[in-house]
Amino acid sequence: MNLIELLNWRYAAKKMNPEKVVPQDKLDRILESIRLTATSSGLQPYEVLVITNKAVREDIKKIAWNQGQVTDSSHLLVFAAWDDYTPERINMMFDLTNELRGFKNEGWENYRQSLLNTYPQRGPQVNFEHAARQTYIALGTALIAAAAEGVDTTPMEGFDPKALDEILDLRAKGLRSVTILPLGYRQADGDWLVNLKKIRRSRETFVTEIP
Amino acid sequence: MNLIELLNWRYAAKKMNPEKVVPQDKLDRILESIRLTATSSGLQPYEVLVITNKAVREDIKKIAWNQGQVTDSSHLLVFAAWDDYTPERINMMFDLTNELRGFKNEGWENYRQSLLNTYPQRGPQVNFEHAARQTYIALGTALIAAAAEGVDTTPMEGFDPKALDEILDLRAKGLRSVTILPLGYRQADGDWLVNLKKIRRSRETFVTEIP
Repeated sequence: MNLIELLNWRYAAKKMNPEKVVPQDKLDRILESIRLTATSSGLQPYEVLVITNKAVREDIKKIAWNQGQVTDSSHLLVFAAWDDYTPERINMMFDLTNELRGFKNEGWENYRQSLLNTYPQRGPQVNFEHAARQTYIALGTALIAAAAEGVDTTPMEGFDPKALDEILDLRAKGLRSVTILPLGYRQADGDWLVNLKKIRRSRETFVTEIP
Repeated sequence: MNLIELLNWRYAAKKMNPEKVVPQDKLDRILESIRLTATSSGLQPYEVLVITNKAVREDIKKIAWNQGQVTDSSHLLVFAAWDDYTPERINMMFDLTNELRGFKNEGWENYRQSLLNTYPQRGPQVNFEHAARQTYIALGTALIAAAAEGVDTTPMEGFDPKALDEILDLRAKGLRSVTILPLGYRQADGDWLVNLKKIRRSRETFVTEIP
């Protein structure tokens, strides 16, 4: 796999083939890539929902500008961030770390205390925004992981997050939806974007070097 | 390249070898991967600064909890998001699209108008937060691109963004710093994290399927 070729291959598919299903092994590797990706302080402050249920996806389509990929895709991923960094959640990840590593590290315990002394106090909106940012690292990873499997994607912010939270009962789980990502296979006929040139600013207007 | 192997190989290097330099061709491919990654509506609402200047990095280290990777790394990337979505910036990307594709697309022009009628009106803070999220897609891509080159990274939010904006004079360019990313090579002696097990929640506690 050549990463630059993958990034050039991928695009936001505008029409997906509703007949084609992403095989389980490909889905598993995409989800594993998401699970392994980096997050701030390793807190993994989000969950991923994988929706194949047709009725649920029809409901989501209605609050997502009626975008066809919501129902025509093979699987619909929902990235849902923690609504807050609570002491329970912070302790859960630090306790898991100690359990899996089999020992306590003094520096790491000090770091736990510094997070406990700062994050919960910032309030839920600041914390949700911070957690939401982390889901975009996962989104970037998921786009590459899918491309590596020859699977098309359409990253979407175009939906009503509050309505989606209600459909999936996310608030009761302390979660708020951030982005959705249909996975599937492009249907070239009916996709206005598939043959158009990818547009990016030149390196000169995008990168500044300070030597 | 196997993506899951790369994601398992990478970690947030806590100590970098100040003697080792990332070759230009590797840096170029990392930057090209960032340039090619997805952004909302393709607006690429950020710029990337590549800092090798020693004095500037010493200044940044002081406002970044004195983290050694800021100066010990080979290159320091700064992801700086647009401070606002202005009509000029939106038009710049749509005009570039028309120029590079060589034609105007009616649907795309309608989409331009819908962004012009909604984004600038949301105000700079909402727009900056939205642009900042996009830089995390690039961050996720950069971590993979660097790993594919055998280059270590340390994604960092731990710095004073206002102070960094001043050091780099970003606000005058309509930019605000979001994250920084040292690129370089791990120095295993002196890195407390290098041999510790990577911790992630289990798939069962991270992924929910709705069949």
